[in-house]
Amino acid sequence: MLKIANKTFNSRLLLGTGKFSDFNVQKQAVLESETDILTFAVRRMNIFDANQPNFLELIDTDQYTLLPNTAGASNAEEAVRIARLAKASGLCDMIKVEVIGDQETLLPDPLETYKACETLLSEGFIVLPYISDDVILAKRLADLGVHAVMPGASPIGSGLGLLNPTNLQYIINKVDVPVIVDAGIGSPADAAMAMALGADGVLLNSAVSGAQDPVKMAKAMKLAIEAGRLGFEAGRIDKKLQATPSSPVEGMSVVD
Amino acid sequence: MLKIANKTFNSRLLLGTGKFSDFNVQKQAVLESETDILTFAVRRMNIFDANQPNFLELIDTDQYTLLPNTAGASNAEEAVRIARLAKASGLCDMIKVEVIGDQETLLPDPLETYKACETLLSEGFIVLPYISDDVILAKRLADLGVHAVMPGASPIGSGLGLLNPTNLQYIINKVDVPVIVDAGIGSPADAAMAMALGADGVLLNSAVSGAQDPVKMAKAMKLAIEAGRLGFEAGRIDKKLQATPSSPVEGMSVVD
Amino acid sequence: MLKIANKTFNSRLLLGTGKFSDFNVQKQAVLESETDILTFAVRRMNIFDANQPNFLELIDTDQYTLLPNTAGASNAEEAVRIARLAKASGLCDMIKVEVIGDQETLLPDPLETYKACETLLSEGFIVLPYISDDVILAKRLADLGVHAVMPGASPIGSGLGLLNPTNLQYIINKVDVPVIVDAGIGSPADAAMAMALGADGVLLNSAVSGAQDPVKMAKAMKLAIEAGRLGFEAGRIDKKLQATPSSPVEGMSVVD
Amino acid sequence: MLKIANKTFNSRLLLGTGKFSDFNVQKQAVLESETDILTFAVRRMNIFDANQPNFLELIDTDQYTLLPNTAGASNAEEAVRIARLAKASGLCDMIKVEVIGDQETLLPDPLETYKACETLLSEGFIVLPYISDDVILAKRLADLGVHAVMPGASPIGSGLGLLNPTNLQYIINKVDVPVIVDAGIGSPADAAMAMALGADGVLLNSAVSGAQDPVKMAKAMKLAIEAGRLGFEAGRIDKKLQATPSSPVEGMSVVD
Repeated sequence: MLKIANKTFNSRLLLGTGKFSDFNVQKQAVLESETDILTFAVRRMNIFDANQPNFLELIDTDQYTLLPNTAGASNAEEAVRIARLAKASGLCDMIKVEVIGDQETLLPDPLETYKACETLLSEGFIVLPYISDDVILAKRLADLGVHAVMPGASPIGSGLGLLNPTNLQYIINKVDVPVIVDAGIGSPADAAMAMALGADGVLLNSAVSGAQDPVKMAKAMKLAIEAGRLGFEAGRIDKKLQATPSSPVEGMSVVD
Repeated sequence: MLKIANKTFNSRLLLGTGKFSDFNVQKQAVLESETDILTFAVRRMNIFDANQPNFLELIDTDQYTLLPNTAGASNAEEAVRIARLAKASGLCDMIKVEVIGDQETLLPDPLETYKACETLLSEGFIVLPYISDDVILAKRLADLGVHAVMPGASPIGSGLGLLNPTNLQYIINKVDVPVIVDAGIGSPADAAMAMALGADGVLLNSAVSGAQDPVKMAKAMKLAIEAGRLGFEAGRIDKKLQATPSSPVEGMSVVD
Repeated sequence: MLKIANKTFNSRLLLGTGKFSDFNVQKQAVLESETDILTFAVRRMNIFDANQPNFLELIDTDQYTLLPNTAGASNAEEAVRIARLAKASGLCDMIKVEVIGDQETLLPDPLETYKACETLLSEGFIVLPYISDDVILAKRLADLGVHAVMPGASPIGSGLGLLNPTNLQYIINKVDVPVIVDAGIGSPADAAMAMALGADGVLLNSAVSGAQDPVKMAKAMKLAIEAGRLGFEAGRIDKKLQATPSSPVEGMSVVD
Repeated sequence: MLKIANKTFNSRLLLGTGKFSDFNVQKQAVLESETDILTFAVRRMNIFDANQPNFLELIDTDQYTLLPNTAGASNAEEAVRIARLAKASGLCDMIKVEVIGDQETLLPDPLETYKACETLLSEGFIVLPYISDDVILAKRLADLGVHAVMPGASPIGSGLGLLNPTNLQYIINKVDVPVIVDAGIGSPADAAMAMALGADGVLLNSAVSGAQDPVKMAKAMKLAIEAGRLGFEAGRIDKKLQATPSSPVEGMSVVD
C-alpha cells in the first residue's frame, strides 16, 4: 500500500492524462494500468469550460484520486495561483508542484519549487513537489513537511529512463516521506528499476500515451511496478564480480 | 507463447533448480514463478541414485519440461557425454549446452560450445547453447541449426544484470531462433530490460534462490518478464535528449 | 585558457590540498599537475596559526591562485563567515562556496548555497559554488552572477566518476559561466570525460592524494584534462549503432 | 613500453590509415599522434599498384611498424590468403587478423578468426586477432599462442566507446599477452578508460579520421592514452558509495 499524507492507495502507479490521441484508448489504458491516481495539468484541463470535451467526464472520477499539477508555472507565485484554482474547483486537495525552469529540458526550478511548497504547506495543501534528483533538495523538502517527493528519472517525455540510479537510491535512503519517481520513464524496465531501488511509486505519462499500443503498455507498466516492488521486498542478491555457480560441481554425485 | 523447436510454452521464464536452501521453499518458488521449464545440472541431480533426495521428486514433473544442462563440462567431449546421459534417462530431449572455460568467471567457451552443438545436433538433440553475447557466435550457432541461443547478461550468479544491452539487442535483431537471456540477472528490472529489448525468454536461478525471500522474488520475476514482454510488444517511445511536455501548455485553455 | 572573472589560467585542472600523506609528495604532485589553482579548506588550513606546519609554506604561493573553500559550513551564514575570514587573510579574493547538507554523502545544499552566493556576490567576492548537477540550479546561479559553477560528478571522495554525464552536458550547454566539474573523479578517464563533454575545468583532490602514487596520478590527470579538452575542441565523431568500416572494402583494388 | 612478440614500441596508440579525407591532414595527424604502428587494409592499400597514390609513400615508413589487417575477409581461408600477400610484399611480418561475420555491425567471427590464427601461427606470422570481448575466446587465443588480442570496445566506426568495461577488465586480468582495445573508440575519454583498466594499447582510426579536426584529435588521443596508462600505473582510489571528505573537518583548527 502506498501512503501519501492520510490516504492509502493499492496501486503504486500514478498515471498522467496528457497527450493521449483518443479518449477511448485513454480510458482503456487507465483501466489496464489499475492506477488509483490520475494527474492532470490544471491549466490544460477544461475543467472550467463546460463546452469543451474533457477526459475526466468519461471515467468514474469517484474511483480515482485526482492529482492536479501546476504545469505552466515558471515561478512560485504562478504555481501557488494554479494550486489555489485547483483547490477551488473542489476536485482535489493534493497538488503536484511543478515549476519549470527551462523550456527546452522542462527541468524543475529547485528554488521556486521550494518557495511554492512553503506557501502551499502553510495553506494546508497536501504537497508533492516534482524535483530533480538533488539529494539535499529532497531532504530539505521532506524536512519542510511535503507529503512526498517526486524526483525525475530524466527529462519529461525523454524516455531516457534512470539517468542516475545512485542519486535516486540516496534519496530513497535519506528521505522519510514517500519517493515517487517521476518523468523520463520510457520502458517497463525503467519503472521496475525505480521500484527495485525502493521507490514508493512511479508517475508516468508519455511512456504510455506515446506507445504504439498505449493500452498494452499501461498493463506492462502496472506489472513492472508490481514486479519491482516485490523484488525490493524480496531482498535481491548482492552484485559481485566473481561468478558463483548456480549449479556447483564440487562434491556432486558424479555420473561419469 | 515461447516456441522452442516443436514445443510451445506459456511462460517465458526458465528457472534453475540449483542452490535453494530448502525443497519446500523451492517448490513454492517454482509455483509462484509459473515457469514451464526447469533447468538442472545433470551432474548434480541425483537422478540416477534412488537413495538421495531429489527436488524433482517433490513436484509433478509432468507439469514441467525439464531442461538439463551440461554444467561441469570443460570441453565439447564432456558436454556431449553428459548430454547423452541426460537423454538416456528418458527425462528430456532438450539440452542446454554449457561448457565453462574459466572457473573464476564461469564464462562459456565459444569454440567447445560450437563443437558440442555440432555433434549434438547431428544426434538429433534439441540444442540450446549458453554463450557469451558475441553477436557473430550467436549467428553462427543459429546458422548451424541450434534451437535457441542463450547469451549471458553477465557472469553466472554475479547479479550484475545486463552488462551490454547493445550486444543483446544486436543478437535479438540478427538471429532467427529464440534468444533466451541467461545468467547474471539480479533484479526484476534486469529481467524486464532483457525482455523489453525483445528477448524471447529469460533463464535465471541465483536471483531467486539467493534472494532473502525466494518465493516472493519468484513472483517478482514472473511479473517482470511479463511486463518486459508486453512493453516490447506495445512499442516503446523513442529516447530523445530534448524534453517533450506531457502536459503541453501551448494553446491550452488558460485559466489565469 | 580558462577564464574565471578577470583571471586567466593556463591549466584547467584545479587541485585540492587535503589528505596528502606527506608534504614532499604533495609538492611533487602539485608540480607534476601543472595546476594554477590550489584549493584548500579555510577551516582546516592553519593559516592563522604560525606554530602549525602548513603546506602552503612549502610552495611558492606567488605561482598559484589560492581558492579557499567553505568546507565545514552547513548553512549560508557559516559559509559567509568563513569566506570573510579567507578574504581578511589577504590571500585570496575568490571563494568556493561549499555548504554541505548531509554528513554521509557530503552533498551540497542548493538552498543555502544560493543564499550564500547572493550575500557574497553583494560583498564583491568572486564566487564559485559547489553544487549538484541540478541543471536549473546551475542556471539560476549563473543568472545571479556567480563566476563559475562547480557541479559534482559524484560524492566527494567517492571515486564514482560521472554519475550523470547527461545532466553535466545540459549544464555545459545552458550556462554561460565556466563549468568546473568538481568531486567524485576517480580516474583520468573520468577527468577526460568531463572535459570531452565541454567542461571548462576539473577540480579534484582525493583521486590524486589517495592514489598509490600521487605524483604519477597528478601527471595522469594533467594529461587527461588536456586530452579531453583537445578532444572537445577537435569535434568528435557521432555515435551510431550501425558500424562504418574504417577500411571500406567496396571498390578497393582487389587482390584476390 | 608496449611489447608485442620481440618488438617494443614507445607509443601505445596504434593508428589506422583509412578514411582520411586528405593525405596532408593524415600525415600531420600521424605525426601528432606519435604512433609507432600504422595499420592498413591489405586489400585497400594500393601497395601493388604503382599507378595509384598511396599514403604510405608520403611518410618515412622506416619510422613506423606497419600492421596490415585482413579486412575484407569473411572466413579463415580469405584471411590467410590476404595475410600471405601482405607478407610477400616484404613490408611487414605482423598481421591483424580481421574476419568480419556481418556486414552491418562489422563484428568479428570468433570461429573463423581462431582458425585463421591457427594457420598463420603455424606459418610463423606474428598474429594479432581482432575479436569481440568474449573472455574465453581471448583466453583460448592466448593459449594458442597469438601475440596480442584486440577486443573491440564497440562496433567499428560506431564511436560508442566501451560498451562492456567489465568484460575488457576480465580479459586484461586473465590473458598474459598484450591486450589492445580496438574499434568503437569515439572520444579521448574512451581511450583513457581502456588504458585505465590496464589495457596495453588502443587501436583507433575513425575517431581521428572522422573528427572535425583530425590533427587535434590525434594529439588528444595520444595524451589520453598516456594519461590512462599513467593512471593505471599510479593505482586509482577505490570506488565507494559513502563520501569521504577531502577536507576533513574533525579536529581541525577551528577558526570560528
